[in-house]
Amino acid sequence: MADDIGLFEAIYSQRAIRKLKPDPVSDELIHKLIEAATKAPSGGNTEPWAFVVVREQATKDKIAAWYLEGWERTYVAGTDSGKNLPDNMKRVYGAADHLARNMAAVPVLILVCGKNAPRQAGAHSGGYYGSIFPAVQNLLLAARGLGLGASLTTLHKFHEQDIKALLGIPDSVETIALVPVGHPRGRYGPTTRRPVEEVTHFERWDPSTT
Amino acid sequence: MADDIGLFEAIYSQRAIRKLKPDPVSDELIHKLIEAATKAPSGGNTEPWAFVVVREQATKDKIAAWYLEGWERTYVAGTDSGKNLPDNMKRVYGAADHLARNMAAVPVLILVCGKNAPRQAGAHSGGYYGSIFPAVQNLLLAARGLGLGASLTTLHKFHEQDIKALLGIPDSVETIALVPVGHPRGRYGPTTRRPVEEVTHFERWDPSTT
Repeated sequence: MADDIGLFEAIYSQRAIRKLKPDPVSDELIHKLIEAATKAPSGGNTEPWAFVVVREQATKDKIAAWYLEGWERTYVAGTDSGKNLPDNMKRVYGAADHLARNMAAVPVLILVCGKNAPRQAGAHSGGYYGSIFPAVQNLLLAARGLGLGASLTTLHKFHEQDIKALLGIPDSVETIALVPVGHPRGRYGPTTRRPVEEVTHFERWDPSTT
Repeated sequence: MADDIGLFEAIYSQRAIRKLKPDPVSDELIHKLIEAATKAPSGGNTEPWAFVVVREQATKDKIAAWYLEGWERTYVAGTDSGKNLPDNMKRVYGAADHLARNMAAVPVLILVCGKNAPRQAGAHSGGYYGSIFPAVQNLLLAARGLGLGASLTTLHKFHEQDIKALLGIPDSVETIALVPVGHPRGRYGPTTRRPVEEVTHFERWDPSTT
């Protein structure tokens, strides 16, 4: 692709974009996001993913209300509206709060689902989620590459059953991530992360590293 | 980066490379893989990942034996040594079998860990894994970009406690993915996946889509 941005450029500048313009996102862009997601690996090549693309306002209104409830129950209550957060997290909190209160205005909500969800979470549920989140990450990187804003959210899980009923999603399918997509108001990275030396252990776990 | 490959080129040609050369992988390349991993998103920007880089032969020997046991217990037993698989999966089975029997010869094993593992898996464990697997996918894409071979494996989980004891990993840390890394014998993609139309639902779940 002639206008493809660099892989490492995308990885190093991907960041959650939570302030989005109301402008619609074309079918072509949505198709590209999902196609990129499907190129991810999955255990046994099972490709257990499914994507529900929501753009109808009445549906977004309901999901947005449930998402906001999850946001208020966890982050708002848990941080006294962000006051208890360290300074470097207050900006992120503000953007996440903005998203939670404006989810209904996001042009596209992509619900990434996993088929054949384990009946009960267990020691190996990591393998199941490991067949979905790489696809989510591909979708987020593709959004970066296409100039779209997106972020990975999971607070819809507090209303998993409500969302499944609303969208007609079968029992055997789990909604795993909710990715709000739109044209960005904000800018991409660079992002700040702990340096490699602080998260890498050689040969054995090094307690002094963490 | 001048020699950066394109994002979509990487996404569309990433594939599990399970046949690896014994040649060592430089510290610089390992650093780049892990740095790319750390650029992934994580819930609340907690960056709960840790990477254990294993190159010592005695350690690899033990992990390889445990991995092989997991492979035989699941895939070998479950497919009658691959005979029960559809033709299009037999090649993948062969490569995975090769990896399982040659894990000790892989130059580098990167164990991607999650800190503050939930004490019991529950409805929200997806959020936890969703803070680790995007980093794993970044690592795999970075390997593609750097010309290295890698794959996402989780069969070490059958010996989670043994591996944690061997490597001195604390109780609160979960080993989530084992990524064998080396210079590739095999080639990259393109990969074959189900088309977007077969995995995408608009507005509501469409039973005819799946």
